[in-house]
Amino acid sequence: MSKPVDPVQLSADLIRCNSVTPAEGGALVLLEGLLTDAGFECTRVDREGIPNLFARWGAKGANRSFGFNGHTDVVPVGDADAWTHDPFGGEIKDGVLWGRGATDMKTGVAAFAAAAVDFVRQTPPDGAVILAITGDEEGDAEHGTTALLDWMAANNERMTHCLVGEPTCPNVMGEMMKIGRRGSMTCWFTATGVQGHSAYPHRAKNPLSALVRLLSRLEAQPLDAGTEHFDASTLAITTVDCGNPATNVIPARGHATVNIRFNDGHSGASLTEWLASHARAVEAETGVQIAMRVQISGESFLTPPGEFSDLIARAVEAETGRVPELSTSGGTSDARFIKNHCPVVEFGLVGKTMHQVDERIEIEQIEQLKAIYTRILTDYFA
Amino acid sequence: MSKPVDPVQLSADLIRCNSVTPAEGGALVLLEGLLTDAGFECTRVDREGIPNLFARWGAKGANRSFGFNGHTDVVPVGDADAWTHDPFGGEIKDGVLWGRGATDMKTGVAAFAAAAVDFVRQTPPDGAVILAITGDEEGDAEHGTTALLDWMAANNERMTHCLVGEPTCPNVMGEMMKIGRRGSMTCWFTATGVQGHSAYPHRAKNPLSALVRLLSRLEAQPLDAGTEHFDASTLAITTVDCGNPATNVIPARGHATVNIRFNDGHSGASLTEWLASHARAVEAETGVQIAMRVQISGESFLTPPGEFSDLIARAVEAETGRVPELSTSGGTSDARFIKNHCPVVEFGLVGKTMHQVDERIEIEQIEQLKAIYTRILTDYFA
Ligand SMILES: [Zn+2]
Ligand SMILES: [Zn+2]
Repeated sequence: MSKPVDPVQLSADLIRCNSVTPAEGGALVLLEGLLTDAGFECTRVDREGIPNLFARWGAKGANRSFGFNGHTDVVPVGDADAWTHDPFGGEIKDGVLWGRGATDMKTGVAAFAAAAVDFVRQTPPDGAVILAITGDEEGDAEHGTTALLDWMAANNERMTHCLVGEPTCPNVMGEMMKIGRRGSMTCWFTATGVQGHSAYPHRAKNPLSALVRLLSRLEAQPLDAGTEHFDASTLAITTVDCGNPATNVIPARGHATVNIRFNDGHSGASLTEWLASHARAVEAETGVQIAMRVQISGESFLTPPGEFSDLIARAVEAETGRVPELSTSGGTSDARFIKNHCPVVEFGLVGKTMHQVDERIEIEQIEQLKAIYTRILTDYFA
Repeated sequence: MSKPVDPVQLSADLIRCNSVTPAEGGALVLLEGLLTDAGFECTRVDREGIPNLFARWGAKGANRSFGFNGHTDVVPVGDADAWTHDPFGGEIKDGVLWGRGATDMKTGVAAFAAAAVDFVRQTPPDGAVILAITGDEEGDAEHGTTALLDWMAANNERMTHCLVGEPTCPNVMGEMMKIGRRGSMTCWFTATGVQGHSAYPHRAKNPLSALVRLLSRLEAQPLDAGTEHFDASTLAITTVDCGNPATNVIPARGHATVNIRFNDGHSGASLTEWLASHARAVEAETGVQIAMRVQISGESFLTPPGEFSDLIARAVEAETGRVPELSTSGGTSDARFIKNHCPVVEFGLVGKTMHQVDERIEIEQIEQLKAIYTRILTDYFA
């Protein structure tokens, strides 16, 4: 019988792979070797230069096919000189593992890979265990988890439930899991009026007046007061730009950008229509043309509390003594893609230092995380 | 007896002087020679590298001291290749004089210099004729007419009335004179809030929301509906800038600029207080700090219609057959400085091509302008 996989050692090995998006850096190659040795059928699902790894233990299309999702790519190190330890060193000191990806989320990937390998070796389940690991979550995410899901659909590969291993705990291990996320969209407005002299505003059509009027209305009322499982939707003006240095000139053009985080009371389409109706009204009132470009980064999603979230919560409580809050807070994650495939929830360790200089994690959390994931697998296939 | 001064020839000679602000280009030297020969006492009143010329015929402090004001500096030629004629050639073709300054305002200076020289030679008046000519009207105007007026005050030089020779007719010679101008001021706002993540606007303080709120209120109501001799005051947003490229970030700082043109119902001080009170209200509501920098380019001024404007209007009508409208329209002019010294009005030729490529004027207008200025002198000293 093989030795159990050490998730701390595997985390450190992964941190030593320089896999800043979109570099593979050896991370997926390392995992592919480990999983293949354990009897997983592995396929590299690269698309447009983005590396992705699909691994399945057990029969394709099994009635119970539990999936883990995560990413091995990391954000850049930022100010390299400011790091206390080599960001790609994987150093362990006083019970703490240092490096880029120590929380987001080479540790999460290592924990579920270690749990999955040991689980299928020790108690081969009646079903399948799937690992869908991407090398592009921190980038555009166009050819990451999406590419994996496209390939799975084309090849009749299916997860019946999926757990995303992103860090989900704000401060204390075990305190929070995610059962949904708000959606996110950005709208770029370009207002085009008629240039003129500042002394004669009535002869010009000021695009900035139109933008101010529009933005003022978009901010006038909250989008909603929140829903059963979600915080209120929010709108933020992120920039307004014109670049006119001449105080005696009314400019011809101005730009403004708003970002909206929305709950399950809205959709990208309904909000696009809401924005467009306000823009059309201001166009009609001012004679200034307002063009819009909208990007919906993700719709909101919710896996309503139930059997699946209960199973995760019980495993977290058993290992940490804490009942995790079922939250929908935070930015977007790849769960926004997976929710179209199967029920999905997210649980991982404390993400406090993610994306920062001196990203690091207590090794105890990595061990706890492997134990939680193992318990989830055991309970799922029980 | 000397030959009359040809204002067209003098205009062409001045155009040949390359006197783009702040270059003297030989223009004031040329005028100084002409005026000295005619018995004017000339003084170069240069300040901070800006050339200015003061010339007086007759006794200092005379009870009737008629002044002309104008400038010999010109704006840059812009796209030199686009000119049909050399902008510094002073070419005359088919009755049209071409070149930079042909309307604004080497012709105006030539017309009043020619009129003044001939007048004092032919009918020496009981009083003084003063020419206050600056080389910096198109630039910052800090050391131009202001320097002349400062020097005059220090030397007990005084004009009893002053005529500014800027182009004042929109389309047809004689149709308009100016008896006042609206004031102009610019306010630069800098809003400083607290940066944050777009997903959590309540944790940040968005400076752009504060600016939108402020600008929206400044534009909500017209400043006034106009006064007896003035159009309504106007406010124009000339730029809003932030430069934040990250759609997931609420920025810490934003900028906005407004330009106000105001009539005699306001002052720079009253409007500064009005802007500040709105800024303070938005600060209190949003927690965003709003700093203001105000520049008052000129207060509004009015020389109420009366004896002086009647005299000018009669001369214009006698030479052109048109009764000039008494207007206060247009941007600022150096009259804004002179109004603190003595009653001032403005009359000149058609300014349609000023500041443009192919600036030009019919030579007939230059001759009419000299005739009008001559008639004004004659009537003033009659
Ligand atoms: Zn992540
Ligand atoms: Zn001018």
